[in-house]
Amino acid sequence: MLTRTPDRTLTEQLAERFAERIRARLLPAGARLPSVRECARQQGVSPYTVVAAYDKLLAQGLVEARRQRGFFVRDFVQKQAPMPEGQALTAPTKGAKNVSPLTGVGMRLSGSHINATALIRGMFHQASSKPQPGAGVLPIGWLDEARFMGAAVRKITGSSALRDGSLSYGEPMGEPALREALARRMADINIHAQPDQIMTTVGATQALDIVSRTLLKAGDPVMVEEPGWSVEFARLDALGMRVLPVPRGPEGPDLAVMARYCELHAPKLFVSVSVLHNPTGYSLSPGSAHQVLQLAQQHNFHVVEDDTYGHIAADHATRLTALDGLRRTIYVSGFAKILAPNWRVGYLAAPPDLVERLLDTKLLSTLTTPSLLEKALALCIEQGQLRRHADRMRLRLAQARARSVQLALEAGCSFAAEPAGMFGWVETGVDTDMLAQRMLDEGYLIAPGALFHATRRPCTLMRINFCTTQDPAFWRTWKRVVQSG
Amino acid sequence: MLTRTPDRTLTEQLAERFAERIRARLLPAGARLPSVRECARQQGVSPYTVVAAYDKLLAQGLVEARRQRGFFVRDFVQKQAPMPEGQALTAPTKGAKNVSPLTGVGMRLSGSHINATALIRGMFHQASSKPQPGAGVLPIGWLDEARFMGAAVRKITGSSALRDGSLSYGEPMGEPALREALARRMADINIHAQPDQIMTTVGATQALDIVSRTLLKAGDPVMVEEPGWSVEFARLDALGMRVLPVPRGPEGPDLAVMARYCELHAPKLFVSVSVLHNPTGYSLSPGSAHQVLQLAQQHNFHVVEDDTYGHIAADHATRLTALDGLRRTIYVSGFAKILAPNWRVGYLAAPPDLVERLLDTKLLSTLTTPSLLEKALALCIEQGQLRRHADRMRLRLAQARARSVQLALEAGCSFAAEPAGMFGWVETGVDTDMLAQRMLDEGYLIAPGALFHATRRPCTLMRINFCTTQDPAFWRTWKRVVQSG
Repeated sequence: MLTRTPDRTLTEQLAERFAERIRARLLPAGARLPSVRECARQQGVSPYTVVAAYDKLLAQGLVEARRQRGFFVRDFVQKQAPMPEGQALTAPTKGAKNVSPLTGVGMRLSGSHINATALIRGMFHQASSKPQPGAGVLPIGWLDEARFMGAAVRKITGSSALRDGSLSYGEPMGEPALREALARRMADINIHAQPDQIMTTVGATQALDIVSRTLLKAGDPVMVEEPGWSVEFARLDALGMRVLPVPRGPEGPDLAVMARYCELHAPKLFVSVSVLHNPTGYSLSPGSAHQVLQLAQQHNFHVVEDDTYGHIAADHATRLTALDGLRRTIYVSGFAKILAPNWRVGYLAAPPDLVERLLDTKLLSTLTTPSLLEKALALCIEQGQLRRHADRMRLRLAQARARSVQLALEAGCSFAAEPAGMFGWVETGVDTDMLAQRMLDEGYLIAPGALFHATRRPCTLMRINFCTTQDPAFWRTWKRVVQSG
Repeated sequence: MLTRTPDRTLTEQLAERFAERIRARLLPAGARLPSVRECARQQGVSPYTVVAAYDKLLAQGLVEARRQRGFFVRDFVQKQAPMPEGQALTAPTKGAKNVSPLTGVGMRLSGSHINATALIRGMFHQASSKPQPGAGVLPIGWLDEARFMGAAVRKITGSSALRDGSLSYGEPMGEPALREALARRMADINIHAQPDQIMTTVGATQALDIVSRTLLKAGDPVMVEEPGWSVEFARLDALGMRVLPVPRGPEGPDLAVMARYCELHAPKLFVSVSVLHNPTGYSLSPGSAHQVLQLAQQHNFHVVEDDTYGHIAADHATRLTALDGLRRTIYVSGFAKILAPNWRVGYLAAPPDLVERLLDTKLLSTLTTPSLLEKALALCIEQGQLRRHADRMRLRLAQARARSVQLALEAGCSFAAEPAGMFGWVETGVDTDMLAQRMLDEGYLIAPGALFHATRRPCTLMRINFCTTQDPAFWRTWKRVVQSG
C-alpha cells in the first residue's frame, strides 16, 4: 500500500512505482496501464492521484496516451533492424500482431526478445524482501551452506596460484584441472568424454550461445521445446534463426511434430532441456530419448542437451548424450543452480569433430574464460564437497516441494505437471500476465506462463520456485488478489 | 635442431613437430609443407627421414599428398556452412581463390576465420622458453610487478564479500563499484559517462562482440581498419557481416575510402583502434577524428572505438569518443594489456539510447559477468595502484622500445610506422609467412603481416612486441634465417 510521507506525495510514489517497473521491463513495451478507476481501487488512492501520476509518466516519456484506449508503455528501447527474409516464427498467426483483450499486451510474433529480457531482468529485480516465487535459482540462504567455497577460493588466490590464474590468458579450452574433474563427474551419469572434448564457458548461457553460433547461420531453422526457457527463444531470435517450437510433454518432445518439422524445414539443431525441464519439471523417458536420436540420425541434425538442472536430478536420469555417446549431441551444463550463479562457470562436451569449431567461436566471443574461479570449482568437485552439497540440496528441495505443493493445492491451484525438481508448473485458472502486475504491487515477483512461450499469448499457467513458495503468507495474498479479480 | 634420443627416432620427432603445429593451427589448412629436399636441409636430416615423417602425417590424416605438388595440410576442421548471399568481402579478387606461389597458402577471401584463429591460438602457444616476438601482451615478468593485485583479491574473497560476489547473479550491467571507478577514470581522458552508461564484459573481446551483434545483422556492411586485429575480421566474418577494409595511415583511417564505402554500401558501423593502433602503433590525429565523426553524422553510422591499449597511451591522446561526447560512438576497453589478461574484465560505454539494447545482448550471451574479479579491479583503480602501475609500465616500455628498435635496424629491418606503444610494424623485405615457419623451428613465434589483413596474401611486414625483442640472440637468429633463404 502507498502511504503519504512528509517527503513524497502519493502521486510521486505511484508514478515512481510504475516508472521503476517500466525501466526494469516488468511492464513491457505496449502493455496497458490499468484504467484510472481500476488503479485507484487497487492502490486505495483517489482517481485524481492516479491521473496526476499518469501525467508524470507521460511527461517522462515512459508512457503514451491513446485516444479512448488509455495509457500504454512506450517502446523506449530503439528497435532492432528489420529481420532478414524468412525469419518469421512458424506460428499459427504468422506475421500478425494482435493485442490481447485481457492484458493489452501486444503479441510479438518475432519479438520474443522483449519478453525474454523482461523475464531475465525480473531475475535480477528484488521486488521486496519477501521470498520471490518467480525466482529461477536456489535462495541465497540455501547456497550459503556451501562454506567450502570460501576455502577453495582462498586456496586459489594464494600467491603462485593467483599469478598462474591472472597474468596470461590461460588455456583456450579452459582450466585443465576443471576439465579433468568434469570428465570424471560426467562418467557418473554415463557420459564418457575426454578432457579435450570439454570446454569451459561463461555459464551454460555462453555454452548454448556458442553452439548456436557455430552450428547455425541466420535464417536456419532450429527446434526448441515449448514451453521453455525464453532466453533460448530470444537468443535464437536475436541471432536471426527460425525458431520451430516443439511441444514438450511428460515423456519428452512431441515426436510427431518434430518429424513434421524435419520433413518441411530440415532443421539443423534441436535444443532440449531433457532432465527436470524448465518450467515443467518433466524428465525425458528412455524410449523418447532413443526416438529423438533416431530422428536426428535420419534427418541429420545435431542435438544440444541443456542439463542445467543436472545437479539436482538423479544420476540415473536419462540423458540424450549418454545414449548417443557424444556423436550428434553436445552436452551443456553449469553450476548456477547448485553453487555460485555469479561465478559464471559453465561447460560443454562435444563430439570430437566439433570441438575445434566450437573453440573458434569461444575465442571470437570472449577469448578465454577466467581460470581462477574454474580452479576453485575444480577443488570443490575433486574434494567431493560439491557432491555432498548437491545431496543436501536435493533432500532440502524434496521437503520444500512437498510443503509448497500442499499450500498451492489449498490455494486452489493445480499442477499441470507432476511436481519434480525446483519448479512447479501451476494451473491457476486466471490470466497470469495480469496477475503478475497485481502481485508485484504486493511485493511478489511471479513468472507468468506467457514468458515460457515463443510467442506471447494470454496464459493461465505460472512457474513457481518450490524453495520460495513455502510461506503461507504468499498463498494468502495470492488467493486474495485472484478473488478480487 | 633435432637430435636422436634413445626413446624417439628423428622421424618421430620431425613428424610430431609438424603434427603439433598443424593441431595448433600454426600451419593452417591448405599450407604446403616444405619440399623433402628443403626440409632435409633445414632440419639437418636425411631426405629419407623427411619422407618417413611425411608418411606418418599422411597416415594420421593431418596432411594430404597432391600429385606433382607435394604435401598439404588437410582441412581437418569441418567447414562452416556456406555463407549467406552477398557476404563476400569487398576485395580486388572478389570470390577468387588463389594459392600463393611463395607459401602455398590458399588466399581465403571469405575465410579470414582460419587465419585469425591461427593467430589467436598462437597467442596461447608457448613455442619455447625464449621471449616470443609475436606475443600480443606484456610479458608475465612485467605484470608480476603488480603485487597489489594479490591484496585486492584477498580482500574481495573475505567471507561477506565472497558471499555477495557468488551467490546471486549480480547486477546485469556489472559490479557497481567498478562502473563508478571507470566513470572517474574515463573523465581523465575527457570521456564523460555516467556509471549507468557503462557495462562490464568478458574482456574487450566480448564488448566488441556485443556491439556487432546488437547493431548489425547478417549481411550488413561494416568498415574495419586494415591492417588490423584479425580477431575483429574473423568475428564479423563468422557473424556473416560484410567486411569493408579501410586502410589505416599515421593520421587515421583513409577518409576518401570511407567516403566511397558510404556512398556505395551505406555501412552501419566503423570499428577503429584509434590510439596505439594494432599492429602499427599509429594514433589518430584530432583533425582525422573530427572528419570521421562528420562522416558518421552525414551517413548515419555508429563508431566503436577500441581503446584496448589506452592504459599505455598518453591521457591526452585523441579519442573519438571524447570529441563525440558518446553520441554516435561506443567506447570499448579492458585490462588485458596492463594488468591481468586472465581476469577477462572489459567494458564499454555507450550513448544512453543504446544501453538497453547492448545490455539485452549481454544477457543473451553470458547473462552477467563474474563480479568478484570486477570488485578486485575496482579496488586497484580506486586506490590509485593501477595508475601508478601503468606509469611504470609506460616508462619500462619506452626503454624496451628504444633498445628493440636499435636491434631491429641493425638486423637490417626498417619500420613501416614510427615506433610507439607496444608493437613495432617492421618491414623485413622477405615473405614473413614463410619465415614464421622457419623461426618456429628455432623456437620463436613471430606474427607475420598477412595475419593482420582481411584477406591473407603474401606480405613482407611483421609485428614485433617491443618487450620480447630485446635479446640480441633473437635478432642474430633472425638474420641467419633470412640470409639462408
